[in-house]
Amino acid sequence: MYKISLGFFLFLSTAAFSQKISGFSDADAAKQIQWEKTFDSLLSTSNQDEWMKFMTSKPHHVSSPQGKANADFMASLFKQWGYDTRIDVYNVLFPTPKTRLVELLSAKPVRLKLEELALREDRTSGLRTDQLPTYNAYSADGDITAELVFVNRGIPADYEELARRGISVKGKIVIAKYGGSWRGIKPKVAAERGAIGCLIYSDPADDGYVEGDVYPKGPYRPSFSAQRGSVMDMPIAPGDPLTPFVGATENAKRLDRNEAITIMKIPVLPISYEDALPLLQSLQGPVAPAGWRGGLPITYHMGPSVEKVHMKLAFNWDIKPLYNVIATMKGTEFPDEWILRGNHHDAWVFGAADPVSGMVSEMEEARVIGEMVKQGYKLKRSLVYCAWDGEEPALLGSTEWVEDHQEELKKKAVAYVNSDGNSRGFLSGGGTHGLEPFFNEVAGEVKDPQTGVSVKQRVYARQMSQGNSAARARIAGKPYIRLSALGAGSDYSPFLQYLGISSFNIGFGGEGSGGEYHSIYDSYDNFIRFKDPGFAYGSALASTAGRMMMRLANADVIPMNFTSFYTTVNEYVTEIKAMADQMRTDAEWDQKVAKEKLYELAADPRQKVGPPMQKSEVPYFDFSKLENSLVELKKKSEEFNTLSPLAMKLSADKKKKLNEILYMAERSLVREEGLPRRKWWKHQIYAPGFYTGYGVKTIPGVRESIEERQWKEAQENINMVAESISKYTAEINKAVLILTN
Amino acid sequence: MYKISLGFFLFLSTAAFSQKISGFSDADAAKQIQWEKTFDSLLSTSNQDEWMKFMTSKPHHVSSPQGKANADFMASLFKQWGYDTRIDVYNVLFPTPKTRLVELLSAKPVRLKLEELALREDRTSGLRTDQLPTYNAYSADGDITAELVFVNRGIPADYEELARRGISVKGKIVIAKYGGSWRGIKPKVAAERGAIGCLIYSDPADDGYVEGDVYPKGPYRPSFSAQRGSVMDMPIAPGDPLTPFVGATENAKRLDRNEAITIMKIPVLPISYEDALPLLQSLQGPVAPAGWRGGLPITYHMGPSVEKVHMKLAFNWDIKPLYNVIATMKGTEFPDEWILRGNHHDAWVFGAADPVSGMVSEMEEARVIGEMVKQGYKLKRSLVYCAWDGEEPALLGSTEWVEDHQEELKKKAVAYVNSDGNSRGFLSGGGTHGLEPFFNEVAGEVKDPQTGVSVKQRVYARQMSQGNSAARARIAGKPYIRLSALGAGSDYSPFLQYLGISSFNIGFGGEGSGGEYHSIYDSYDNFIRFKDPGFAYGSALASTAGRMMMRLANADVIPMNFTSFYTTVNEYVTEIKAMADQMRTDAEWDQKVAKEKLYELAADPRQKVGPPMQKSEVPYFDFSKLENSLVELKKKSEEFNTLSPLAMKLSADKKKKLNEILYMAERSLVREEGLPRRKWWKHQIYAPGFYTGYGVKTIPGVRESIEERQWKEAQENINMVAESISKYTAEINKAVLILTN
Repeated sequence: MYKISLGFFLFLSTAAFSQKISGFSDADAAKQIQWEKTFDSLLSTSNQDEWMKFMTSKPHHVSSPQGKANADFMASLFKQWGYDTRIDVYNVLFPTPKTRLVELLSAKPVRLKLEELALREDRTSGLRTDQLPTYNAYSADGDITAELVFVNRGIPADYEELARRGISVKGKIVIAKYGGSWRGIKPKVAAERGAIGCLIYSDPADDGYVEGDVYPKGPYRPSFSAQRGSVMDMPIAPGDPLTPFVGATENAKRLDRNEAITIMKIPVLPISYEDALPLLQSLQGPVAPAGWRGGLPITYHMGPSVEKVHMKLAFNWDIKPLYNVIATMKGTEFPDEWILRGNHHDAWVFGAADPVSGMVSEMEEARVIGEMVKQGYKLKRSLVYCAWDGEEPALLGSTEWVEDHQEELKKKAVAYVNSDGNSRGFLSGGGTHGLEPFFNEVAGEVKDPQTGVSVKQRVYARQMSQGNSAARARIAGKPYIRLSALGAGSDYSPFLQYLGISSFNIGFGGEGSGGEYHSIYDSYDNFIRFKDPGFAYGSALASTAGRMMMRLANADVIPMNFTSFYTTVNEYVTEIKAMADQMRTDAEWDQKVAKEKLYELAADPRQKVGPPMQKSEVPYFDFSKLENSLVELKKKSEEFNTLSPLAMKLSADKKKKLNEILYMAERSLVREEGLPRRKWWKHQIYAPGFYTGYGVKTIPGVRESIEERQWKEAQENINMVAESISKYTAEINKAVLILTN
Repeated sequence: MYKISLGFFLFLSTAAFSQKISGFSDADAAKQIQWEKTFDSLLSTSNQDEWMKFMTSKPHHVSSPQGKANADFMASLFKQWGYDTRIDVYNVLFPTPKTRLVELLSAKPVRLKLEELALREDRTSGLRTDQLPTYNAYSADGDITAELVFVNRGIPADYEELARRGISVKGKIVIAKYGGSWRGIKPKVAAERGAIGCLIYSDPADDGYVEGDVYPKGPYRPSFSAQRGSVMDMPIAPGDPLTPFVGATENAKRLDRNEAITIMKIPVLPISYEDALPLLQSLQGPVAPAGWRGGLPITYHMGPSVEKVHMKLAFNWDIKPLYNVIATMKGTEFPDEWILRGNHHDAWVFGAADPVSGMVSEMEEARVIGEMVKQGYKLKRSLVYCAWDGEEPALLGSTEWVEDHQEELKKKAVAYVNSDGNSRGFLSGGGTHGLEPFFNEVAGEVKDPQTGVSVKQRVYARQMSQGNSAARARIAGKPYIRLSALGAGSDYSPFLQYLGISSFNIGFGGEGSGGEYHSIYDSYDNFIRFKDPGFAYGSALASTAGRMMMRLANADVIPMNFTSFYTTVNEYVTEIKAMADQMRTDAEWDQKVAKEKLYELAADPRQKVGPPMQKSEVPYFDFSKLENSLVELKKKSEEFNTLSPLAMKLSADKKKKLNEILYMAERSLVREEGLPRRKWWKHQIYAPGFYTGYGVKTIPGVRESIEERQWKEAQENINMVAESISKYTAEINKAVLILTN
């Protein structure tokens, strides 16, 4: 048992007058705060501007000359700033288009343009050399001709609507709107339903003229612009499809291309709304439901078309090198405890916002830390700055690197901080909930460039300005940024979900919206007009991530708050239970309404819309193991919280042991067998949705089993998650024992 | 005091085996049901078809040759069917356009077409003789030139959004979208804010191509079609603007036109979306908020424009005759107790759906009843069948007639049943809530033509098919149609809201949506393709309204259910109290957020949007008088309900007295002084919204005073409504006394 002495409370109350940092002794906190002021004062926006100008001067996708040039450029800078720097090369399957043809075989055939125009107002848009045309990477090759069906966002629920109207996509080409799911879900679900091809277009209601003036007058997508992007089946696994689970090194054992399960089964191509217009106009059949309609000046029909569409796609299926820049600043006390930071450097074309805005911010952050180290700043733990290649096709660079270094990372990685595109606006973050209070402490220290208050206070201001009275009452006087759960939108995935390394994804945004995403118009000219003119938010990001890196590197005790993790997971479980109850009630009512023929009675006989698909009954689940594991987690995490102030007084040896427990705790949430039907994804709390893509599913094994009505699997997963949580709690208990012995 | 004998309960339980009708003795019910079967069997759809073809063969607005021909035609038919028929003529101010010009004064000026095209597929669309062009009746004359501002729906909240962006409409012309409020509200609010002109256009997102295929391919509004309609300030008073409160008879004392307060103060014109496009494209200024955007392929801006708009409108301000057809079938027992039925016969142009679909159904209903009377069917009370002229401009025919006959109507009118446009779909009704159970009894007897179940059951099927589980659980097993509250959309207003006559507005719809409203395409050709092919729902309407008329005419005891009134009013009061509480909390939070400068902190400095308009604090109100009056109402109405079975055994004399009390009760809800700032509207429970138009406001004196932050007036009105409810309860008490003495 343990006691807390009165002396300890006195210590707390006197210390309250000086500024504190969780995990730091008062003395260390004072020094740290001084260094953070220095850090802020050294940040330069003109560096970011200059670097972005160079790095976006030419297309710089995986294996492009400028991509390699950028890696070399960054590596030389990192070296210059005092980092031990290397370029790690992997050889990955990266398909690029040879043939792209789509035509509507109407009386007078319409051939789609499939081209983004050069604009006088955008200087790089006319640089055609090395420009990847609009395409979806990992689409299948194909030469097909078929009728067209409109499938809205292309998620399973959309096919239920089609089925109610007797419309099948079997043997057809589908046309889907971007948005509402990750793009790779659309052809995947279409192929599962028997479609033989897929077109994905950017509707003007999503990022075109409906949202605002189009480029170059405003920032939104012009009629001829299309969104490039990967359609690899990343909810199965990201990374090189030929080398799952291992690094794609030169001599790695590779699958044959037709063994690779994450390559899309049908041809897919993204098109502009100008190109989509004649296709959508060719559709017959019922008028699309209200929620399916977009912003084009037509009546949206569901199809099929009478006229056929001809689609011919062929790709170079080459294995190409990618270049990760890895720059280490060794820690003085714990060189084998790594704080990692990453952003990708590859783009679909010029990629000023995505990803260079985040990359140059990371570089400036690294530069200033290097400068401070030269001035005498000490880092206890090692910092590892990464610039990933090949994120766009499938998190290639980060995944291969993590797979390649997995054994070392499992031991050494304390945390990973990711960023990607960045713009004016509000700080947001996703990640490991045990570090949510830590993140908030940092957000309370960083100044918002436009208002002068802290970036945390500005988020609070927005929440308070937008919410209704009930929402306002809940948060009033308590500025706090909830971390979102992480899915698979950027390079944190291999760290968090494959290895169980505590991770963050952070960035500013909300005031730089536009429609340049994955087009040639994501350019320097666009960025400095609409995204972050003057790079003030590039510096704010450096200021935020830099503090996180330095505090994690120098904390006496890793500022882990298990109660914050408990609270969040408990919310997820409550949500899932409520969802199951709701599904059960809904299924009961649906069956009752169907049995009484009320759907038929209510239907318009001239519309021929059948009743909604009948859903099976939902059993009751035994949540008790999971609930009991949460009770234990709550108890232990509160016990640890109460005791944690004692940590500062532990011997150096015990403190090191304690810290290892603290940063390794997240590993216990990883289960070697992975999630049902996708063993690469191992984290039991966070995963990208199997049918939503980027969209995260929390406690995915349980949630998705229930959503997909796999009742047996759901019960098994409830118990497995309970086990993982118990393991996690056991780690907390080890920490408690160190503190009380 | 009273006792209920055991014998009475036995009587009830044995009677349960034969079909019963509320207010009828079992013997009378049996006969009545037999006659209702006869009624249904005599209904003809081909009559309706033939009459519609004739009545819509030419334009038939107020004072048109075909309008007069239709009145004569109907009058001769009513006479033929045995009705005592006359045509009541009133002379009303009805402006029609002389000059309509709108042009955008751009470098190359654009002159709007302002014309609906003749279509080969629509035979009457090419008949130009007598066609009223697109215009808004009671617009002011004017010749103005000014910049344009887009005001969304043109309601007060929209001007708050403009104000937050520093945009004023003073001295400007506004362009508003149809919908979201009654059209007359748009120029009224604009004029209050200093605008000098108003254009109203039909956005394709509301009834154009966004909703479905446009005419003639589908039923929706083609690009060149515009919505005619009145912009008289009807929330002040409907009817002839020169003769408020009195019938516009030949020698009535008339105001001078410039004394008439309900004529719009500024020029207003409706335009098509094709005509609106260049105007909307000329707008500068901020991008319109998401909720303001429509379906045109442009970025919607708020304005103002740089280029000016020139608008020139001039009208013939003639006084013209209108023709109401009034056909009476005298009651045999109580000839001075009137059951009234009405539908208007005037249209903006050809008006097949609006209003002829309802008119021919009413005619068929009257024909069959006439036929039955010839076969020996006896009506205790008198039926008065009305065909109103001049509804479109401002409920002219009904209002002048009601004002003219107000003393007689106050004494004799038992109830008024209104209909207007009718189409395929679901029965809906609005009206006097004391007769809601009566309405449901009827709805349970009428067969839906498409499914064969009762029209009530079909409404239930729709509610059960659409609702979520919670909503389904609330209504499951209890088919019931709630009557909506009545505002000012058709000819019931003078009956219900000016005189306090129990009223209904009923019709079928929901499966005949389109965009023909108030255009030349509301034609016979359109109707028989899209609205009610075969007139089956015309017959269903006759079957519903006919039953209502015959049952009200022949009931031994008027089937008034005061508890149903209580339940509804109690809900309104609960709503209003919750609204006041919410407004109070919202104002407190708004002030707090504003005081802490959180709006400023959250705002995007590049957008220049100010904080929301600060609202004053909301005081607590003393609702006790109203609440106590409701307690008394509840008690008395339940007491009456329990006793009501005794009514059947009353002497003829007492029964007559009781019935008078029952049908006169609604009169006590009328207050001679009228509502605040609009004394024509006298009903304390239902009125059209002062700033919503058609949109009803329940307990308007209280609700609108609170909404408009007139605190003193709100408290006064709470007490006045309490008084009205107490008067109503006193009437119930009189009924109770008759039953217990």
